[in-house]
Amino acid sequence: MRTNLRRLVGVVALACLCTGAVSVADAATKKPPTMADVIKESKPSDWRTLDPANTLYLDLASGRVVIELAPEFAPNHVANIKALVKEGYFDGLAILRVQDNYVVQWGDPYADARSGEPNQPRQIKTAKRKLKAEFSVPLNDKLPFVRLPDPDGWAAQTGFSGDFPSARDPKLRQAWLTHCYGTVGVGRDLDADSGGGTELYAVIGPARWLERNITAVGRVVHGMELLSGLPRGTATMGFYDKPEQRVKIERVRLAADVPAAERTNLEIMRTDMPTFTALVESRRNRIDDFYKVPLGHIDVCSVPIPVRPAK
Amino acid sequence: MRTNLRRLVGVVALACLCTGAVSVADAATKKPPTMADVIKESKPSDWRTLDPANTLYLDLASGRVVIELAPEFAPNHVANIKALVKEGYFDGLAILRVQDNYVVQWGDPYADARSGEPNQPRQIKTAKRKLKAEFSVPLNDKLPFVRLPDPDGWAAQTGFSGDFPSARDPKLRQAWLTHCYGTVGVGRDLDADSGGGTELYAVIGPARWLERNITAVGRVVHGMELLSGLPRGTATMGFYDKPEQRVKIERVRLAADVPAAERTNLEIMRTDMPTFTALVESRRNRIDDFYKVPLGHIDVCSVPIPVRPAK
Repeated sequence: MRTNLRRLVGVVALACLCTGAVSVADAATKKPPTMADVIKESKPSDWRTLDPANTLYLDLASGRVVIELAPEFAPNHVANIKALVKEGYFDGLAILRVQDNYVVQWGDPYADARSGEPNQPRQIKTAKRKLKAEFSVPLNDKLPFVRLPDPDGWAAQTGFSGDFPSARDPKLRQAWLTHCYGTVGVGRDLDADSGGGTELYAVIGPARWLERNITAVGRVVHGMELLSGLPRGTATMGFYDKPEQRVKIERVRLAADVPAAERTNLEIMRTDMPTFTALVESRRNRIDDFYKVPLGHIDVCSVPIPVRPAK
Repeated sequence: MRTNLRRLVGVVALACLCTGAVSVADAATKKPPTMADVIKESKPSDWRTLDPANTLYLDLASGRVVIELAPEFAPNHVANIKALVKEGYFDGLAILRVQDNYVVQWGDPYADARSGEPNQPRQIKTAKRKLKAEFSVPLNDKLPFVRLPDPDGWAAQTGFSGDFPSARDPKLRQAWLTHCYGTVGVGRDLDADSGGGTELYAVIGPARWLERNITAVGRVVHGMELLSGLPRGTATMGFYDKPEQRVKIERVRLAADVPAAERTNLEIMRTDMPTFTALVESRRNRIDDFYKVPLGHIDVCSVPIPVRPAK
């Protein structure tokens, strides 16, 4: 082990490597499993692969950001974003805004340019610029939901729909994606129906107050650090002050349209299996050589949903 | 207004600039005040200056990070960190670790070097390497606490002690600093009493599960983006792989030891005044031209405590 790892803020995944793997089955008699134990003991059936038809690759010079789309939560926006991607709308556009502890946003720097200015807005062929808001969707039986029993102040219920952190309100009879780290949403003007997907953002800080006020379309499942590690913009709301500070988007493609050899093949842990329940518990009550007091709580945005290269 | 600000994820502070300031006093008859309104209408007595005797300047080539220390919550660690700073312990050391969505950590890259290696650990003169943990402090009447009424899953009660987000548990009769964005804590080994302040970290993601398991000593009140915007480390736990990736610390000083002309003079909004109560409400129920549905909730880590240059 590298010597400078010794004096550290502990992370369960590493602490486990020190204590040795404990089988999930042994939990009753030995220490409860850590998250690393749970992952180690997981079966192939605890994982699923991403659907290429609902996966975007946002390619930057620094690498690839993989976004899983959630058509169940924003069907019209997801379809429109796919149409934008198909026609190459995002290719050559840029990351425009990095507001510390809030969002990273990308789109067309000249979206609002006036006629006659040297740089004109990117044209749209078949997709739409504006859509009716999809802030939430009606509760329906087809929408999976593995409820988290822990209390949440922002929503009546929280949990996981597939591998999307989500919330629902039985009284409102509505469900929505929670605005956690990595959630991808649709930038808009003041009018609720003014967004369409030409400008998107990823959450890099607390942002749950945006729920039910903006359309969320998916989440970053890989490469988030390529966005979150960018320098913060110094203009109002974290926009980059100067054109040269913007980060160019090489291109955005739907995974299904990318040759198999160029795909980033990932597996995500299923949230509807006992293994994931054990993982949640390992985060709710951390008991290992580093953690001294289990807190008995976890929130929907603090559960890491494991992702790994597909085998 | 810059044209590319139009298509955006709204921020109350900006939305207010569009809608015009509304006096706090007018709240009953007009739209409730936004956060920007509250700040605009605040009085000088709503603000206080930082105490130079409990303020650290962490100077990087990119700028200054200002850390407010909380001696009420970790008296021995704060005293020891001040002693380390006095003897120049941190000068020339480095940021060693940036783990995405978790922590930025700094200290001595060679803290665990073995005898005979070319780079030897930084020596300590009068301060201590290890102290007994100060994960929480006994509740006492001298500790200010402005309680937030909103429910919190991690702690029995949350609120603000001075301008520190904090939590308490009447049954345990303990209080502690909450691990919010910007909270500064003490790195340690597996043993609870193995930290002393020679290695410190700032929180850049959800980390509330660290509460009551690690000693928190204060929080970054200015310059946080100089830490959070750093490239993520690619070694285990976000450590920088190569020495040249580390970010050098020019020096760390106590503000009281810095000539007046070189100080960063800041004012922080007091949390024990009606103005701050109004600010919290403006975040709990956002009602403006951008937000359509007020959520009726705020959490202790989502309340921005305004900071501004001292006049």
